[in-house]
Amino acid sequence: MDEFSLIEQFFQRNSLLRQDVIIGIGDDAACVQVPDASQLLISTDTLVENVHFLNSWDPYDIACRAVKVNISDMAAMAATPAWVSLALTLPKLDQTWLERFSKGLHETLALWRMALIGGDITRGPLTITITIHGFAPTGQVVQRQGALPGDHIYVSGDLGAAAFAVQMLTTPSMANLPFTSKEQALLLNKLLHPMPRTDLTLLLREYASAAIDISDGLSADLQHICEMSRVGAYLIDNDIPRHPLLQRVATPNSPDWALTGGDDYELCFTIPSEKEADFLSACTQHSLRCYRIGIIQSEKGLSIQRKDGRIEVLPPSGYQHF
Amino acid sequence: MDEFSLIEQFFQRNSLLRQDVIIGIGDDAACVQVPDASQLLISTDTLVENVHFLNSWDPYDIACRAVKVNISDMAAMAATPAWVSLALTLPKLDQTWLERFSKGLHETLALWRMALIGGDITRGPLTITITIHGFAPTGQVVQRQGALPGDHIYVSGDLGAAAFAVQMLTTPSMANLPFTSKEQALLLNKLLHPMPRTDLTLLLREYASAAIDISDGLSADLQHICEMSRVGAYLIDNDIPRHPLLQRVATPNSPDWALTGGDDYELCFTIPSEKEADFLSACTQHSLRCYRIGIIQSEKGLSIQRKDGRIEVLPPSGYQHF
Repeated sequence: MDEFSLIEQFFQRNSLLRQDVIIGIGDDAACVQVPDASQLLISTDTLVENVHFLNSWDPYDIACRAVKVNISDMAAMAATPAWVSLALTLPKLDQTWLERFSKGLHETLALWRMALIGGDITRGPLTITITIHGFAPTGQVVQRQGALPGDHIYVSGDLGAAAFAVQMLTTPSMANLPFTSKEQALLLNKLLHPMPRTDLTLLLREYASAAIDISDGLSADLQHICEMSRVGAYLIDNDIPRHPLLQRVATPNSPDWALTGGDDYELCFTIPSEKEADFLSACTQHSLRCYRIGIIQSEKGLSIQRKDGRIEVLPPSGYQHF
Repeated sequence: MDEFSLIEQFFQRNSLLRQDVIIGIGDDAACVQVPDASQLLISTDTLVENVHFLNSWDPYDIACRAVKVNISDMAAMAATPAWVSLALTLPKLDQTWLERFSKGLHETLALWRMALIGGDITRGPLTITITIHGFAPTGQVVQRQGALPGDHIYVSGDLGAAAFAVQMLTTPSMANLPFTSKEQALLLNKLLHPMPRTDLTLLLREYASAAIDISDGLSADLQHICEMSRVGAYLIDNDIPRHPLLQRVATPNSPDWALTGGDDYELCFTIPSEKEADFLSACTQHSLRCYRIGIIQSEKGLSIQRKDGRIEVLPPSGYQHF
């Protein structure tokens, strides 16, 4: 089987589903039509075997996760995801692997009405690079910069479960955890199938001054907002929404998965105080629950008010890639 | 050094050079403005170590080649290249390697006034994926499909040198070739620094019915035009422009590097006969030389008229990726 039959069998089907795809898979480049009065958003994420996923994972899950972490980057910019390119490097031609992988890919794309428009398939160590394209009305993109002192800091949901799931997968002694198999599956699902928060896109465009998705951990990602906005942040520990199951395993010595763990792909964003009432009533109207966890301040750095009232300065942290 | 300092040191400098880049490197996604009345073209190419380049190559050359093969995809669609994303997977943090690589990258991008707008840096086996973005006035994109019986087939320059250079690099016995070191460098340069034919973009938009870049070999790539256009092609062997140095090593048993070898990144395109006179005078006006090598016919498949008058059917061929 050559590259062309492989593409035809596993990847071409979804290419022309969107009317704005003029040329899909099969030419030197894809051609799409960006809507009028819109700006184009582009983001790339690479997943490497045994770094970002394990060889033992179901290729279906790997594909879902690869697409979803990219959609999350669009959600963080308040952009509408539309088209993806896939660069797939495979050690060998494994039909079963490709069937599962492409099923996960097409199902996830279909959920967001997105099209796979092209890419490249090469031979080599298993690596998946997705470049995602989306758009937003001109001037309505939400960036990491833009947070001002006095803005309130929000997160879009429970944190910590994905980071705990990573630990569960990599620590054999955690097999004796106080979780039913259903609960373990639920925690794993938070890692394998994060839910990018595109449901917040319209609200972010209208109300948010800055936003980021939580891939490296709340503390690290909020620090990105602070650095880009040249401000600092003050967090209320007690207000950070932690996944309820984590209470069962939290000890004074366990890591704070919600604060320092990554992979949740919830959003962290800031709302100017004068817009907060309207934002909250819009949330209610759309049945969305967001959590206020602190406030932006002019003093640089990140500090947190602990449960006992003590104020602690948080060190720069997050996932170190090298 | 973490991912962020690495990006800042080696990659960020070029990000905002273009006025149409609204948000460059450093946010969850880049944001660009596609010109009005234009369509967006997107293409992805991956280069894997020891598959598409050798570990021993200068990282400067690797970067130049990675960008140029992507620009060539834009040239093949008659699109203007504008923005690239880079997904770079590195086994370790090697400052010297990164300095050479980023120098090649920035210099090549600058030659085409392009911007590096984002990407991802991950740890793993050396892999370079570039997604290139360009644009063309709506409806002026040139595809692989569109060639009609009677259209003349053209190539944009000498073929075969890059494929011969691959052979030179991989066959130790070829060290005793009848070339001066300057000539060897010239041949190698055809492989390491292909020159994407963006100089033909305006002419292709005006005159070509179909186009492709020659990456897998003239025979294989022309077959793609034929398949997509549902036609066949008839070539005149004697009219195929072969790199002049290859005559010195061609024997009756040597491969036909020009016909079956890839990596030249010249363009193969078709010109309707009624537009041919205007096309040729436009070429002269722009000091461009293209070579007519055959004609499109309704009978499917590829045939070639050999120098002795014999007509031969060419088998489907080209680079097999698996």
